[in-house]
Amino acid sequence: MKFLRVNMTERTVKEEEVQEKYSKMGGRHLTSCLVADEVPPLCHALGPNNKIVIAPGVVTGTSAPSSGRLSVGGKSPLTGGIKESNAGTPFSQRLGRLGIKAIIIEGLATEGLWMLKVDKDGAELISAENLKGKGMYETADTLFKEYPLKNSSLMGIGPSGEKRMAMAGISFNDPEGRPSRYAGRGGLGAVLGSKGLKAIVVNDAGAPGVSIQNIDLFKQGQKKLVEAIRTHDLTKPGGALNSFGTAILINVLNEVGGLPTRNFSSGQFKGASKTSGESIAEKVKERGGAGMMGHGCHPGCIIRCSNVYPAADGSEIVSCVEYESDWAFGANCEIDDLDTIAKLIYHCNDIGLDTIEAGVTVGLAMEAGVISFGDGNGAIDLLDQIRTGTSLGHILGNGAEFTGKAYGLTRIPTVKRQAMPAYEPRAVKGIGTTYITSPMGADHTAGYTITTEILSVGGQADPLDPKGKVELSKAFQTATAFIDASGYCLFIAFPILDISDGMEGMVETINGVLGTNWTVSDVGRIGMDILSIENDFNAKAGFSKEDDRPPEFMRYEPLPPHNVVFDITDEELDKIWK
Amino acid sequence: MKFLRVNMTERTVKEEEVQEKYSKMGGRHLTSCLVADEVPPLCHALGPNNKIVIAPGVVTGTSAPSSGRLSVGGKSPLTGGIKESNAGTPFSQRLGRLGIKAIIIEGLATEGLWMLKVDKDGAELISAENLKGKGMYETADTLFKEYPLKNSSLMGIGPSGEKRMAMAGISFNDPEGRPSRYAGRGGLGAVLGSKGLKAIVVNDAGAPGVSIQNIDLFKQGQKKLVEAIRTHDLTKPGGALNSFGTAILINVLNEVGGLPTRNFSSGQFKGASKTSGESIAEKVKERGGAGMMGHGCHPGCIIRCSNVYPAADGSEIVSCVEYESDWAFGANCEIDDLDTIAKLIYHCNDIGLDTIEAGVTVGLAMEAGVISFGDGNGAIDLLDQIRTGTSLGHILGNGAEFTGKAYGLTRIPTVKRQAMPAYEPRAVKGIGTTYITSPMGADHTAGYTITTEILSVGGQADPLDPKGKVELSKAFQTATAFIDASGYCLFIAFPILDISDGMEGMVETINGVLGTNWTVSDVGRIGMDILSIENDFNAKAGFSKEDDRPPEFMRYEPLPPHNVVFDITDEELDKIWK
Repeated sequence: MKFLRVNMTERTVKEEEVQEKYSKMGGRHLTSCLVADEVPPLCHALGPNNKIVIAPGVVTGTSAPSSGRLSVGGKSPLTGGIKESNAGTPFSQRLGRLGIKAIIIEGLATEGLWMLKVDKDGAELISAENLKGKGMYETADTLFKEYPLKNSSLMGIGPSGEKRMAMAGISFNDPEGRPSRYAGRGGLGAVLGSKGLKAIVVNDAGAPGVSIQNIDLFKQGQKKLVEAIRTHDLTKPGGALNSFGTAILINVLNEVGGLPTRNFSSGQFKGASKTSGESIAEKVKERGGAGMMGHGCHPGCIIRCSNVYPAADGSEIVSCVEYESDWAFGANCEIDDLDTIAKLIYHCNDIGLDTIEAGVTVGLAMEAGVISFGDGNGAIDLLDQIRTGTSLGHILGNGAEFTGKAYGLTRIPTVKRQAMPAYEPRAVKGIGTTYITSPMGADHTAGYTITTEILSVGGQADPLDPKGKVELSKAFQTATAFIDASGYCLFIAFPILDISDGMEGMVETINGVLGTNWTVSDVGRIGMDILSIENDFNAKAGFSKEDDRPPEFMRYEPLPPHNVVFDITDEELDKIWK
Repeated sequence: MKFLRVNMTERTVKEEEVQEKYSKMGGRHLTSCLVADEVPPLCHALGPNNKIVIAPGVVTGTSAPSSGRLSVGGKSPLTGGIKESNAGTPFSQRLGRLGIKAIIIEGLATEGLWMLKVDKDGAELISAENLKGKGMYETADTLFKEYPLKNSSLMGIGPSGEKRMAMAGISFNDPEGRPSRYAGRGGLGAVLGSKGLKAIVVNDAGAPGVSIQNIDLFKQGQKKLVEAIRTHDLTKPGGALNSFGTAILINVLNEVGGLPTRNFSSGQFKGASKTSGESIAEKVKERGGAGMMGHGCHPGCIIRCSNVYPAADGSEIVSCVEYESDWAFGANCEIDDLDTIAKLIYHCNDIGLDTIEAGVTVGLAMEAGVISFGDGNGAIDLLDQIRTGTSLGHILGNGAEFTGKAYGLTRIPTVKRQAMPAYEPRAVKGIGTTYITSPMGADHTAGYTITTEILSVGGQADPLDPKGKVELSKAFQTATAFIDASGYCLFIAFPILDISDGMEGMVETINGVLGTNWTVSDVGRIGMDILSIENDFNAKAGFSKEDDRPPEFMRYEPLPPHNVVFDITDEELDKIWK
């Protein structure tokens, strides 16, 4: 196991031994810890002192199910705080198999645009001038011609990252080579852009594989976890996620009045059913061709919630139309045409944008009157302005809060300057608490209380009731931080919360790899350690409890149809990290 | 004495008795205290819960010399913290004479654009639809036709304020009716814009005048203060400020290497002498016509540091070309032509912009490559884009930090999101400390240590030496807060620091008006009270000690010609408010 340290100023790559301190860490645990140890919290996120850390999870690269997740960490140019952004991709598995625990990218290139080539024999920086300004699809085409998909995976940034825009995500390829898997949130693509690093290609031919300390324990755990995933209604083959994708939630959230609509001015969208997971599945069936449900973001995933969305003629528009992206351009912008939504997602993938931030930003531009709500072609034009870097593009490319400020708006659905995802805090108060208190800024994946509040997994809780939501969010946030360190997909939470054998199995696979003796009770402890590291970084970056607050309008603007405001008090919110 | 409370939502105006708590307060003391008492620190600055408070100083409206200052307070849409912005104008004197201690503007108009008419019989809101989108010169022309200058004064916002841009200041008229005196800093014009209030006209015909508790003491103090002002080299008739205006400082700061040049990348400007106060005086003499030096911003000023800058044909370009404005578009943008600088100031006055924020913003646009350094016509075009509200205008109109972020720049000379004025923190460390630690964000007037560091008034201090600068800045900040409450111009600091009779005289005039028994030693205590109120508001608005930091580049980028960084440590900085 080793670290690769890439210095863009010196244009050097060094292998480093992994210090004991970091030896049991992976994924988010490792990225957050390295960022906290090496990045001055008050540095300019696009300046010479920020770093990007890329780390596969602990079990990533093994045969553990649905474990191909990767964490990317750094100081976020969007939130100004620490950021871990997470994607599922074979890139992560290849890194794991090469024994690379983390890649640390530091400094700023004084000239040129560069890419990093990594394989079993080492790593080097080579010119990427030929990729300058290129979209991610062309970038992927070009690179996979030279570095075939069979052994290679790709990470890259689009034009938005090169332009150092705070909405720029980091793209990774899916099993078929599409640059469609994103560590999207928090603008880390802009940090890579500031450093002059366009892409990384990892080739794992001849890699040693992940070293497993206790193979029997690992296999035992793996079996239990596979069994749980294959049993649970949400995750089993032919289950909800596999059949309809994550957009199965569109109708569900709409029914409970928690689907943010028209820039968070309502909780219900007339066009919801037209943009639902059921409609996606129907189109895929109807149109055939390239379309498919049950697509996986990395080999070894047995949940397979991704999809490939086809045009009327059967050609591929994009992979994938998942819930958050679908909602961001759908209900949030009042666009009820799936084909248009799919095209918007394609453009985000190509330009290098976080679809959540992009959709909320477009919604704010609509509220400002730049274009009208529901104007799908107008929305595509806005994304194109980000691509080409017009003045308007430089507003939009810097995200939702920036765009709202540019036009003096007050209904800006952000926390810590990051756009809220697809669940209305006023109607679903546990997830609202997660948005507000997560060190990441508004982020559903940081503590996905929807599990309990909406899906009745791991218990039940009334989404409208403020009581107990701080505790619920805290429990989810701590467990999530652990899962984000493991390399497992967050969706294993559904089976392991309902099936105790699954939970045990997860911990056993990790103990198997690391040679540790953690129990289920260590999950919360380690998760809390990770969150403490992150909250501590943020405090040193200038965050205070006043940053753990909802946007003011959610306190005084009642949300239809329930006509509710966000009514968890500041005092309650402040209890979460005490 | 009374408060006028204007509710824009209800469209009502009420007179209120002044509570005992506020009875001895004026100016900044009163605005900051009312804002702290009535505005929720976490409210959206452009939302329904922010307020604007307008208050003349304690002695404003009396015959005390150079005392026509006005404070405007509120939560700043630029900094996110409390703001007091200060102008010298007859408007303030008329308010004082009407016995109006403060105007409090609250709520948001649901429709329309409004103006407030105030006279001895009361106040009312009337439609200002006819002024919609109008620049301040046309606004002033229109209003002074209806409300003659003889008895009336004007406050207003330009198109930038109506568009709720965070760079929008609040305009007041000078004695001849020019809308050229600005409470510029912190974007309070945007707050008025959000409330739908375009203008206020105050008519003081038949006003009772300021009530003075001890007229003999007042007169005694007035005499001492007048004598001190008339004696000191900087403030006396025919002295430096009177003869050359504040731009006398251009050559001085350039010589010490502290004149921020080319967006804070050097401390010296080749074109400095062409833009100096001496050059202004020369042009005025040469060209004659409307030109004049020794112009006053309000009747009763005996310093008279303002000017009227003429074109080659003797017609008026603008009043006035003062140091900060001259520098902002001059050295900072590498524009060395005074006529162009004067035109840029005219556009700022008309559009309703803070010249400091505007000039630093244009410098950042130049650094981003939007236009070139030195391109005066390009700069005028940029201001015009703010006026018309193009996409680029919506970037620039939101200020320097916003513009720097839009283009992913790292050399952004701001503190608490407010642009730095015309003194380089790396070369003049006391003023740097003021920028960094003031609750107002970067602001030279908050604690003008230039007095001692550069002008050797009130002692001497080496500008390059970090030692003792925290104490120096604190002393100036506390004394300044007191002066900002008094209604006196800050420039009385020069004579009263050097001439102890002058200091006594100032305190006596205040005691005369209020019937208090304050001594010179109360100045620091009351100043500290004001600063504590402001710092406390900011803490509740989410500020922490990490907001009292220089921009990172000033820590690692040495400034020519001295090749110095800002080297007062964080620990030293943190001592200031402890």
